[in-house]
Amino acid sequence: MSESYEEKAARLDAADELAKYREKFALDAGTVYLDGNSLGALPAHVPARMADVITREWGELRIRSWDESGWWTAPERIGDRIAPIVGAAPGQIVVGDSTSVNVFKAVVAAARINGDDRDEILVDATTFPTDGYIAQSAARMTGHEIVACDPADMADAVSDRTALALVNHVDYRTGRLQDLPGLTAALHAAGALAVWDLCHSAGALPVGLDAHGVDLAVGCTYKYLNGGPGSPAYLYVAERHQAAFDSPLPGWNSHADPFAMTPGYEAAAGAVRGRVGTPDILSMLALEAALDVWDGVAIEDIRAKSLALTDFFLECVRAYVPAGRVVSVTPDAHGERGSQAALSCENAPAVMAELIKRGVVGDLRRPDVLRFGFTPLYVGFADAEKAARVLAEVLADLPA
Amino acid sequence: MSESYEEKAARLDAADELAKYREKFALDAGTVYLDGNSLGALPAHVPARMADVITREWGELRIRSWDESGWWTAPERIGDRIAPIVGAAPGQIVVGDSTSVNVFKAVVAAARINGDDRDEILVDATTFPTDGYIAQSAARMTGHEIVACDPADMADAVSDRTALALVNHVDYRTGRLQDLPGLTAALHAAGALAVWDLCHSAGALPVGLDAHGVDLAVGCTYKYLNGGPGSPAYLYVAERHQAAFDSPLPGWNSHADPFAMTPGYEAAAGAVRGRVGTPDILSMLALEAALDVWDGVAIEDIRAKSLALTDFFLECVRAYVPAGRVVSVTPDAHGERGSQAALSCENAPAVMAELIKRGVVGDLRRPDVLRFGFTPLYVGFADAEKAARVLAEVLADLPA
Repeated sequence: MSESYEEKAARLDAADELAKYREKFALDAGTVYLDGNSLGALPAHVPARMADVITREWGELRIRSWDESGWWTAPERIGDRIAPIVGAAPGQIVVGDSTSVNVFKAVVAAARINGDDRDEILVDATTFPTDGYIAQSAARMTGHEIVACDPADMADAVSDRTALALVNHVDYRTGRLQDLPGLTAALHAAGALAVWDLCHSAGALPVGLDAHGVDLAVGCTYKYLNGGPGSPAYLYVAERHQAAFDSPLPGWNSHADPFAMTPGYEAAAGAVRGRVGTPDILSMLALEAALDVWDGVAIEDIRAKSLALTDFFLECVRAYVPAGRVVSVTPDAHGERGSQAALSCENAPAVMAELIKRGVVGDLRRPDVLRFGFTPLYVGFADAEKAARVLAEVLADLPA
Repeated sequence: MSESYEEKAARLDAADELAKYREKFALDAGTVYLDGNSLGALPAHVPARMADVITREWGELRIRSWDESGWWTAPERIGDRIAPIVGAAPGQIVVGDSTSVNVFKAVVAAARINGDDRDEILVDATTFPTDGYIAQSAARMTGHEIVACDPADMADAVSDRTALALVNHVDYRTGRLQDLPGLTAALHAAGALAVWDLCHSAGALPVGLDAHGVDLAVGCTYKYLNGGPGSPAYLYVAERHQAAFDSPLPGWNSHADPFAMTPGYEAAAGAVRGRVGTPDILSMLALEAALDVWDGVAIEDIRAKSLALTDFFLECVRAYVPAGRVVSVTPDAHGERGSQAALSCENAPAVMAELIKRGVVGDLRRPDVLRFGFTPLYVGFADAEKAARVLAEVLADLPA
């Protein structure tokens, strides 16, 4: 008798070395949470830490906490916690502001570093829209021209007019993983800088910022890094570019001597140069605590489990769902896949609403994409099987 | 027998209608906290609210909270809570990002609204430095020239070349209150826009944004509004300017239909246009809860108590401290005074360190200014008397 998918899931979960990390998160047995690519689950120890931050650090120490509780240095300290997850040596990442604001800093700074004889900025045409909106604004202000371009065509489109390219490492909609090493090398060969958006890859797969010579990068922390709703984003500036990094948002936190409060601006050395204003400490320290779950985790193990999960989910979908009701828009090839499965589907809004009602939480990308994110730290194979099974039930109950 | 200053403090505290608000804050009897102009004290109910936000809204509802817990609309909802405190009708304030980032939005947007034939931006020469750094960056990117100018001279300096002026309502160092109605009118008379920084006035005195015709304004929320360390700042765009408000940071949160995720940017109507990226929900909801303490409070009563407190503190300082050891740099005239007393003092760093050691928490502004902020919601007259008395003791114990 052949093994059922439920049995296979149980076997895979039993052999999963990462399965023990699930207990580090606040999860309920009734829900299959496949939206960690939008908002990561709550690490179970974060509430106690935040109670201490709020009642003792803010409530009792008050202003003294800027020094005594390490608030002031949090942006670069937490940056160094994120660094190994994205393959960066210390001193190149600062945390703060939103992804959009960091895209603005990165695009303007890259254009200034490399823009003297180059008047074009290539922007990933499949990007999460805010990157495109912000790049357009940056280009308007620096006098560059935006050229929208599919990442697959970028190696051909880059020229000696290209100052930089802004590319998403994983397409938020389809889950396609772009070729970061290859495209970075192609951009460099043409003298352009590579600015990568890691929102949908950091914490889900190896990025290798240093190893692949990425110039600048940005990312959010509330997806696979589980930092909490709207937790601050980060900015990576490769060490070799830091001295030339000329921020369009030179707030006092990036000053060489911020408490001198001199009228003239003098940029600090290092990654601190990417800071702007006073950091939002509550959100930032929740993120710092959330990063504790990464202690001892190798990103290669995360990647292996992620691919196994999406493989298994798509296998279950093919087995359970009548042919033609859904079409995977996520690439089959491992080298082209992030950590989500995206299925196009008729009547997708009603299907996702019903899935959520039945305890399988994915999300919708209008008009017709069902997104299921697989977070290896807390999603198991039984979750993947159940999600596919409930999807088949929902599709059977709803008219096509 | 004449009344002692301690007796007078007790009499004034007994008659103080706002004294009852002190119990709404987490304060300890041993500390006189006069640094609420840098970091406001913790409202006592905030920890329980944040525990619910973290464990239930994030931990249990997770992604559903963007709708079900009202996360998505928090920036404009909380803006409308701040509005009455600064004299603005609803629909003109959004909360989010740091003050520095909002200064950038406001200066660029004002320059675009009013910059076609005007190439100068006046900047308060006494401003908190970040405003000057950011205005300089904005001017560089919009092609304007920065002219640094003391607010007292601005009415004379404004001309038909002036696109806008950026002015601090209260000088962070000296505590001087600038003439917002008069200077706004003078700027308007010359066709310039008025952009005000309210960091050191909002929550301490009436601002009257609408009544005085202010064009744009920014402010932080962690001082007199007690929003918590690095809580998000806000941006005011007067309704008449909203249609022309052209943000340099057009992130997806300010799109007319953000979840359509279209490649082209189309700005939302109203104050929402000032949003950028995903808001930092933990910091934002701590601020929202903190604003509850303002229910039923009239800003005019805050102002009356603030002036009485700083008057009484300076009176006690004159009585207790030997002549010449400190010099008040805060104006005597009520119309020129914010809600802090600033004393220049030799050996100021050592004096402030010793004051803090003895339980009187003010702060230092290098090189020689002792700052004492008076937050009428939780500081009383006995605090003011004790602060002056301990200051005199410290000065007696330390060599001049």
